[in-house]
Amino acid sequence: MKIETNIMKFKESLKLESGRILDNYEIIYETYGELNENKSNVIVICHALSGSHHAAGRYANEAKPGWWDNFIGDGKTIDTLKYFVICSNNLGSSFGSTAPMSANYPSKQPYRMKFPVLTISDIVNAQMLLYKRLGIEHAHAVIGGSMGGMQAICYSIDHSNFAKHVFALATTAYTRPWAIAINKIAFEAIRHDPVFNNGNYEKVDLIACSLPGLAIARMAGLIAYLGPNSLQEKFARKYTDTDGLYELFGRFEVERYLEYNAYNFPKIFDPLSYLYICKTMNIFNAARGKDTMEDAFEKIKCKLHLISFSDDVLFFPAEMQEIYDLMINIGKKDLVTYKKVDSTHGHDSFLVELDKFKDYIKEILEER
Amino acid sequence: MKIETNIMKFKESLKLESGRILDNYEIIYETYGELNENKSNVIVICHALSGSHHAAGRYANEAKPGWWDNFIGDGKTIDTLKYFVICSNNLGSSFGSTAPMSANYPSKQPYRMKFPVLTISDIVNAQMLLYKRLGIEHAHAVIGGSMGGMQAICYSIDHSNFAKHVFALATTAYTRPWAIAINKIAFEAIRHDPVFNNGNYEKVDLIACSLPGLAIARMAGLIAYLGPNSLQEKFARKYTDTDGLYELFGRFEVERYLEYNAYNFPKIFDPLSYLYICKTMNIFNAARGKDTMEDAFEKIKCKLHLISFSDDVLFFPAEMQEIYDLMINIGKKDLVTYKKVDSTHGHDSFLVELDKFKDYIKEILEER
Repeated sequence: MKIETNIMKFKESLKLESGRILDNYEIIYETYGELNENKSNVIVICHALSGSHHAAGRYANEAKPGWWDNFIGDGKTIDTLKYFVICSNNLGSSFGSTAPMSANYPSKQPYRMKFPVLTISDIVNAQMLLYKRLGIEHAHAVIGGSMGGMQAICYSIDHSNFAKHVFALATTAYTRPWAIAINKIAFEAIRHDPVFNNGNYEKVDLIACSLPGLAIARMAGLIAYLGPNSLQEKFARKYTDTDGLYELFGRFEVERYLEYNAYNFPKIFDPLSYLYICKTMNIFNAARGKDTMEDAFEKIKCKLHLISFSDDVLFFPAEMQEIYDLMINIGKKDLVTYKKVDSTHGHDSFLVELDKFKDYIKEILEER
Repeated sequence: MKIETNIMKFKESLKLESGRILDNYEIIYETYGELNENKSNVIVICHALSGSHHAAGRYANEAKPGWWDNFIGDGKTIDTLKYFVICSNNLGSSFGSTAPMSANYPSKQPYRMKFPVLTISDIVNAQMLLYKRLGIEHAHAVIGGSMGGMQAICYSIDHSNFAKHVFALATTAYTRPWAIAINKIAFEAIRHDPVFNNGNYEKVDLIACSLPGLAIARMAGLIAYLGPNSLQEKFARKYTDTDGLYELFGRFEVERYLEYNAYNFPKIFDPLSYLYICKTMNIFNAARGKDTMEDAFEKIKCKLHLISFSDDVLFFPAEMQEIYDLMINIGKKDLVTYKKVDSTHGHDSFLVELDKFKDYIKEILEER
């Protein structure tokens, strides 16, 4: 599989939904496979909160391949022998695209808290400008899960002629107070972390202390992504061998797992990016700027394929069902499909239970 | 209704499940109504994590009455004209019973982290000694929800001749990794709070800063107690009037609610108590010390009444169903009843949706 990582620099201003402007921004992106002559074989992949543009393949120094590597590659569901796949790092994320710790042009100082709040539509608009630069006007499909699914929904409504098929997995048309409340733990934990220092932290301090605020934020996320079934299956009531049952800080295996993953997170992710991305997800609402949710989905001309996961406790299947029902109610039966996967890995099922829905996606991608 | 608040002091040592000893402990408790001559009208109420012995009635200086006041009182479901109701503050809790901030006898210094880890069975054993002091050998019923339900289950197994009826609401026979994971947020948030200072905090500092660690712990709890339905019903996507949608720290109403309640919590609750009680809940397992869960429930001679709530996302209805099925499987059909309440207030339904199950309890209490 041919992989390329590139950075696209934009000198022009990006006008944001908030009315603010983002100048001199950059998008880092990966591509897999080759663009065909008439540029008709593009598939766009949208990543989730802590994901990156590195969706597939494995670099020499890497312990693990890209986050959707079992899905994307030569001969896989997203067949890179056939398709030209693009995954860009969302604006605001700390894996290389412009984000709160990027230089606040023309200064060389990071934006920090001066970074503008971005919306899903801002992130998607920036991606559309990237495709334009690449000479790509049309995609065969856009596919994303969780926050990537929000982007997918945004593509289907606001850029409805762009893709033939849009797949939105494990997501919602508007973020409910349950998910906002879980993100609130992140906001409070990061905001009150003294090392965070109101956003004026030094990177070196972060890594030295494994910023507990961001670690706790990540922990709240991990719990919601895994959900009760997955936690039960992975850990049951196993207690850590080395800890005493009657020690106050003695740990169950589930606690050790959460500690390990949460305290490693600040080594790879920036706390301001985390806050800004949570905010982006919190304020996502497909109906914003339209009178009703129906008006928003009325705009859809592409095919919208919804996939939910039965034991997802972050974005519940009922939220995807609601979109499907709405599409039926507004007479768009021909433009929508809905599959509820009987899952056991909670919200993360869209990443790990591929075997349960990859054929479904493949059939749709290959229908003529 | 006659209310009394008393403190019972124990000079004798309490031998704990861990093998440790608790010396010179105290239990604060409230009673409602009057004990009849043959001491046959006792109902024991067990409180949850952040609850207290103040279950009913209202003192002159109080804004709100006791936590189960709509359930307990003259002419109410737990009719104090008929029953003598006792609710004691759990050992380890910070409302007046011996707890981590109590004097570590014979010193006058608080235990802090030297306080022993308590189990549900320790808490119940101490309560049994209280009843003995009061000359009470038998109760008509024991009733508790959540952590109080764990105590109820413990009564039914380890003190099976004590009560005629045991009601366990919104609880489990053993804490699953999902609930342990939610408590892990509490552990990490409190432990890493600099004001907590490894347990060596000063009370005055706590109140001045509203200990963010404990506030975040409380927030994680509140989210789990309310659950997605209740949050949706209460807040939907309402945004705070005074905040901007594109401000990073602009808040949805749900966030304002969580802030308000979470940051008030350290004013009334002690962080070490919070940790110790979470630990008690985490390690609750009705089968501990028995070969199997079946062996544990084999010991039941009283009637066990299980009440679950359909949208409880802390202790799922399936966990209560599991106990019911187990009782049936071991041939104890005559000693168990199970009611699943169709609830809309999540885990907190046992506190707020009384109208849906109070008649069920009343009928059982009054059957001859």
